[in-house]
Amino acid sequence: MLPDALAALRQIFGDRASDAGAVLAEHGQSESLVTAGLPEAVVFPRSTNEVAALAAWSSLHRVPLIGWGAGTSLEGHALALAGGVAVDFREMAAVLEVRAEDRLVRVQPGITREALNQDLRTTGLMFPVDPGANASIGGMAATRASGTTAVRYGTMRDNVRALEVVLADGRVIRTGTGAPKSAAGYDLTALFVGSEGTLGLITELTLRLHGQPEAVMTAVAAFPSVGAAVDCVIATMQMGLTPARIEFLDADTVAACNAYSRLTLPPAPQLLVEFHGHPEGLAEDVRRFRDLAAEFGAEGLDWADRQEDRTRLWAARHSAYRAILASRPGAKAVVTDVCVPISALAQAVEETRADIAASGIPGPILGHVGDGNFHAILLVDPGQPGEIAVAKALAAQMAERSLRLGGTITGEHGVGFGKLGLMAAEHGAGWQVMGAIKAALDPLGLMNPGKLVPGQG
Amino acid sequence: MLPDALAALRQIFGDRASDAGAVLAEHGQSESLVTAGLPEAVVFPRSTNEVAALAAWSSLHRVPLIGWGAGTSLEGHALALAGGVAVDFREMAAVLEVRAEDRLVRVQPGITREALNQDLRTTGLMFPVDPGANASIGGMAATRASGTTAVRYGTMRDNVRALEVVLADGRVIRTGTGAPKSAAGYDLTALFVGSEGTLGLITELTLRLHGQPEAVMTAVAAFPSVGAAVDCVIATMQMGLTPARIEFLDADTVAACNAYSRLTLPPAPQLLVEFHGHPEGLAEDVRRFRDLAAEFGAEGLDWADRQEDRTRLWAARHSAYRAILASRPGAKAVVTDVCVPISALAQAVEETRADIAASGIPGPILGHVGDGNFHAILLVDPGQPGEIAVAKALAAQMAERSLRLGGTITGEHGVGFGKLGLMAAEHGAGWQVMGAIKAALDPLGLMNPGKLVPGQG
Repeated sequence: MLPDALAALRQIFGDRASDAGAVLAEHGQSESLVTAGLPEAVVFPRSTNEVAALAAWSSLHRVPLIGWGAGTSLEGHALALAGGVAVDFREMAAVLEVRAEDRLVRVQPGITREALNQDLRTTGLMFPVDPGANASIGGMAATRASGTTAVRYGTMRDNVRALEVVLADGRVIRTGTGAPKSAAGYDLTALFVGSEGTLGLITELTLRLHGQPEAVMTAVAAFPSVGAAVDCVIATMQMGLTPARIEFLDADTVAACNAYSRLTLPPAPQLLVEFHGHPEGLAEDVRRFRDLAAEFGAEGLDWADRQEDRTRLWAARHSAYRAILASRPGAKAVVTDVCVPISALAQAVEETRADIAASGIPGPILGHVGDGNFHAILLVDPGQPGEIAVAKALAAQMAERSLRLGGTITGEHGVGFGKLGLMAAEHGAGWQVMGAIKAALDPLGLMNPGKLVPGQG
Repeated sequence: MLPDALAALRQIFGDRASDAGAVLAEHGQSESLVTAGLPEAVVFPRSTNEVAALAAWSSLHRVPLIGWGAGTSLEGHALALAGGVAVDFREMAAVLEVRAEDRLVRVQPGITREALNQDLRTTGLMFPVDPGANASIGGMAATRASGTTAVRYGTMRDNVRALEVVLADGRVIRTGTGAPKSAAGYDLTALFVGSEGTLGLITELTLRLHGQPEAVMTAVAAFPSVGAAVDCVIATMQMGLTPARIEFLDADTVAACNAYSRLTLPPAPQLLVEFHGHPEGLAEDVRRFRDLAAEFGAEGLDWADRQEDRTRLWAARHSAYRAILASRPGAKAVVTDVCVPISALAQAVEETRADIAASGIPGPILGHVGDGNFHAILLVDPGQPGEIAVAKALAAQMAERSLRLGGTITGEHGVGFGKLGLMAAEHGAGWQVMGAIKAALDPLGLMNPGKLVPGQG
C-alpha cells in the first residue's frame, strides 16, 4: 500500500486504522493449518458510512478489503492472500432493534451469536443457529454457517431475512424486507449469504428469531454400529419427528469426550438428540424416538429432561473438538466437513472410518447427521510433514467421496481458499457462473481476492 | 424471425416447432388483464439437449426465449413482449426419480403440482407448496411461488434443493446437490428460483418432500374485527404453534364463498386454520389455538377433523377466487398481492379495506396471514376503462403502503412486467445489481426480455 493510500485511510478512520505489527499479526492467524501473509492494515469501522467510504477508497487505491469477524473460520476465509485491509467489525456489534411481534432482530455484523442470545434472553426469543464456535453473526452469514440446530431451525440461508451490504464501489444496498416472504426479483439476500465477502461487505442483518422452547428433552443412545445409528436417524426423519438436534459421535469421539468431560458413556457410536416443543407433543416425540432407537438396537437411552443433565451432555458435545485435540497431546487438527444425502450417510461415514484406520493417524468422526453433515477431526503432529500430507489426502478423499455420493465438498465450513481446488469438481460450469457474477459486482477484484471464485487472471 | 431462423428451429424440433395461429394465440394469453403481442413460434422440447440447442439457436439468431408452464401467471411472466419463441414444457413433465430415504424427488419442469402429488400418493410423501392454481413446478420455481402452506412448509425458495438450468449461451449447469445443505459458494439455486426465466431455462428440479401428515385438524373461526383476527394470528405464531395453513377471509370474501359454495359461515372476518402432526401433539395445538381464538373474541369455532368436513371447508377456500368473480357477473379481476411484516398486517388490511370502500368498486380481501401476505380481488367491469384505472390505482396504493410498512410489492405472484414499475421503489440500487447479474449471465438480453430487471437500452 502506498503511503498516500494509508494517509487517506487514516483520514477516514483516524486511530482506528492500524498498521502496528501486533494488530496485523492478530488478523493474520486462523483456527486452521491454513497460513498466509498478513494484511497491510486493519480498520475498525463504526458505521455503514465508514464502510462505504472504505470501499470507495479501496476502488480508488486498488487495495483489497477482507472482512473480519471473530476469526473462527476453518478454511482461511479472512486471511489476506494479496495484502490489503482487514475490516474488523468488532466496533459494529450492536443489537439495533428487537421486533418481537415479527420475531425479527436487526443487528450489526460484529455481534457474536452468544452475545446476541444473551441480549435476547428476556424476550422469550432466540437465534438458534449454532456452529459451535462463538462466531460473529456477519461471519456466519458470509459463510452460510449452520451447526447442530440446522436440522430443525435451518442454516443462515433460512434465518437471514434481510441485509444491508456495501458493494465494491461503495454503493449501499438493502436486500430483502421485513415481510416473511417475497417474489420481487432475484434473491439477493441468498446471494450474499455464503458469498464470503467476495461480493460486498455486510453492514447490517435482519435475522429471524424463534421462540425459546417451552420444554426441552435430551437423550443419548449407544448403537451397535455406525449403520444402525444412521438408519435410526433416517427413520426418525421419515417419521416426521423434527429433533432440534441429532448429533452423531463415533466410538473414538465418545472415548475422547469421556476422558475430557469425565463422562462414562459406553464406547460405541452414539446419537445425542434434543427435542423442543410443548410438553404434551414432546412426550409423544420422545416415546416415538425411544421406540425407534430400540428397534435399531440402541442401549442406555439416557433421557435428560432436567436442565443440569442436559447442560452436562451438551457441554460434552460442545467440548468434543477440544476433547479430541486433547486426546493426542501436541497435535494440530485438520478439520474436514462434508455433507451427503442422508441415504448415503452410513456408507460415507463407514468408508471414511476405514480410510482413517488405514492411514495411521487418528481421526474421530462426529456430525450433524440429521442433515447428512459430518466431520473427521484428523490429528497430526505439526512437526511431521508426512502426517500433514496424509491428512490432506484423507480430506481430499472425503470430498471426492461426498461428490460421488451426490453430496457437497462443504456442509458448513465454506470454501475460503482451503477448498478452492474442489469447487470445479462440485460445480462444473456453475463455478464459471459464480465467476461471472463476481466480475459483474466486483470488476476490480478487490473484495476478498483469491477466495471462492475461479482465479481472475 | 427470419425464415432461415425458423427453418433452423424446425431442424431441432421438427413438428414440435409451430407457428400456427391457434398455437401462438394459446401462448399469448394470461390469467390477468395484462396483454401483449404473440410469440412468433412455440416449441415443445423433450430433453435438456433440445433446450440447450434452442439456447444456442437463440444466441445465433438473436431471438428471445420465453418459458411457458401452465400459463397461470397473474403478472404476464410468460408473455412475449418482443416476439420470440415460447418454450412450452408440457412434454417435459416426468417424475424422474423418487428418493424416499432422502425425501427428495427429481422432476421435469412441465409437471403440475397436482400431477406430482398424485404420483407421490402411495409413497407417504407430498410436495406441499400450494399456490392455488395447478401451476407447473418449473413455473412455480421460476416465480418463487408459495400459497397457503408456506407458513409451515416454506415457499419454493425453501423447497427446491437443486436445479438443472440451460443458460442463455446453451451451457447446462447443475446447481445444488442431494445434500440437505451446503456452504460451497454462491447459492445459485436460490438465484434461479424467482428469476422468472430471465437468467436461464430450468430443465430439471430436485424438490424437498415432506411426510404426509399423520393427522390433520381444521377450524374456522369468526372474529369481531379484522384486527382481532390478525392479532390472533400474531399470538398463534408467537406461541410457537405452527399451523400448516392459516388463512384470512374478510366479510366480503366469506359472503361470496357462502353464496358460491353453499356454506353458512357468519358474515364476519374469518380465520381458516389447519394443523398437521401426530394426534397427541395436535390435540394440544388445537386446544391452545382454540383458547387463543376465544381470547380474541372468536365465535363459532367449527372444528373439522373428519375428512369430509375438511374437504368442504378447504374446497370453499380454494374456490374463493371463482366465488368472488361470480359475485359480480361479467366482471374481470385485478388480483393484487402484497406481503408485510406481520406486526403491520392489521393496519395494512384495514387501510386497504377503507380505500376499496371509498373507491366504488368491489374488492374482497383474503390472504395467507401467517406470512403477512394478502390479496384484494378488485372486480372491474371490463367495458368501463374508468374502473380499470381505479383498480390499478388501488393496486399501486397497496404496493406503496406495503413498502411504507416495511413489506414487499409482491409476496408470491412475482414481477413479470405487471410489477416492473415498482421494482426501483422496493430495491433502490439493488435493482441495478439485479440488472448487472442479468447482463453477466445473458449479455444478449434474450432470456424473457422486458421482465424483472431494469431496461437494457
